[in-house]
Amino acid sequence: MKVILARDLLGVNTVKGENNREILEKKGLLTLNIISSPGAGKTTLLEVTMKSLKNKYNFGVIEGDLYTSRDALRLEEHSHAIVQINTCGMCHLNADMVARALKDMPLDSLDVIIIENVGNLVCPAAFYLGETFKVAVLSVPEGSDKPAKYPELFKEARAVIINKSDLLPYTDFDLPGCVKELRQINPRAEILVVSARTGEGMDQWIGWLEVNVQQIKQLSTKECLQ
Amino acid sequence: MKVILARDLLGVNTVKGENNREILEKKGLLTLNIISSPGAGKTTLLEVTMKSLKNKYNFGVIEGDLYTSRDALRLEEHSHAIVQINTCGMCHLNADMVARALKDMPLDSLDVIIIENVGNLVCPAAFYLGETFKVAVLSVPEGSDKPAKYPELFKEARAVIINKSDLLPYTDFDLPGCVKELRQINPRAEILVVSARTGEGMDQWIGWLEVNVQQIKQLSTKECLQ
Repeated sequence: MKVILARDLLGVNTVKGENNREILEKKGLLTLNIISSPGAGKTTLLEVTMKSLKNKYNFGVIEGDLYTSRDALRLEEHSHAIVQINTCGMCHLNADMVARALKDMPLDSLDVIIIENVGNLVCPAAFYLGETFKVAVLSVPEGSDKPAKYPELFKEARAVIINKSDLLPYTDFDLPGCVKELRQINPRAEILVVSARTGEGMDQWIGWLEVNVQQIKQLSTKECLQ
Repeated sequence: MKVILARDLLGVNTVKGENNREILEKKGLLTLNIISSPGAGKTTLLEVTMKSLKNKYNFGVIEGDLYTSRDALRLEEHSHAIVQINTCGMCHLNADMVARALKDMPLDSLDVIIIENVGNLVCPAAFYLGETFKVAVLSVPEGSDKPAKYPELFKEARAVIINKSDLLPYTDFDLPGCVKELRQINPRAEILVVSARTGEGMDQWIGWLEVNVQQIKQLSTKECLQ
């Protein structure tokens, strides 16, 4: 009975996620659900990304955190609109929280929505928020065995960012082995090796983001013309 | 209503945790519930610890993992008994899983039980397993802001291990700031800065462990004599 209830909760969440997706698609907004362990460098990655693109695109940010607003404060300067969600100890964002956040955002003046999920490699992967894509961030010091050990997220992510590449010389991270394992788990994922701190590889990630912003915009325009 | 059910589940878990605690205390077994983010280095820390003490103490290990048995295979060689729990996607161990594992262990011939929880800084902190102490492992590359951002675990942990100290020169980790924040969140926690990889600081952690093994043994002997 407990299991059935858990499934119901996930089912209700998925329906709400689909509602969010419909709203976001109509507005032609690329929406990325960024998921990683605590401390994999999501916020630094987003800071650098948004700083580099803020004259080109208006970013809306939904910032998930257990209690604090530390990350939101770091991203505020580079975003057109930002909504902080404090989950008060809950280990993931759900679609209802995102629906409420979207109501507070000027969707017509945005190009991209970034959802920075709670730092957790397990639970957020199970909750569809209405995003266009999930983006997994794995940091080098976490170890190259993580995709195999936490496959849910890595199976679903459209892009996997291997961050903190500047720490490769100081760790035992097996980069070719990790990429090989990722390819087995998820053959279609874009794999990007970056260091948000030094800037290494960031052009490639930003290029991927730009291509997808444009594709979603074009899809939405085509649908309007039909 | 959903919230009430969640509380009930936690309540049931706590009762089962108390049952485990009673069994473990009677046997005079120090039981540590080791919790961290994925990739903070729990398994390496335990490998080095158990290798160093295995001629002195018999270690029982309960190894929590979503799907794989990679960590259990690494620890098998140094443990007297090991039970693998695959949670099949569940984000934490609960007291019932541990109760079943304890039934499969030769408790009378053990000195210490190590429970390596699922890599997750959020959910495992809420589920009491019957442990003597929770031990939090925070790794340097995760960043010094983590205790403030994920306070549940750090509030409750009797020891906080700051691992991967060998990476301090290559990151922005603010060690004095982190220790200060930890002291505010949890004044009684033992804070140990170590590198399981290079061995730095491991003597202090192993010393802490030994003192506690002895104390629990003495307590249990006293109770038997009364």
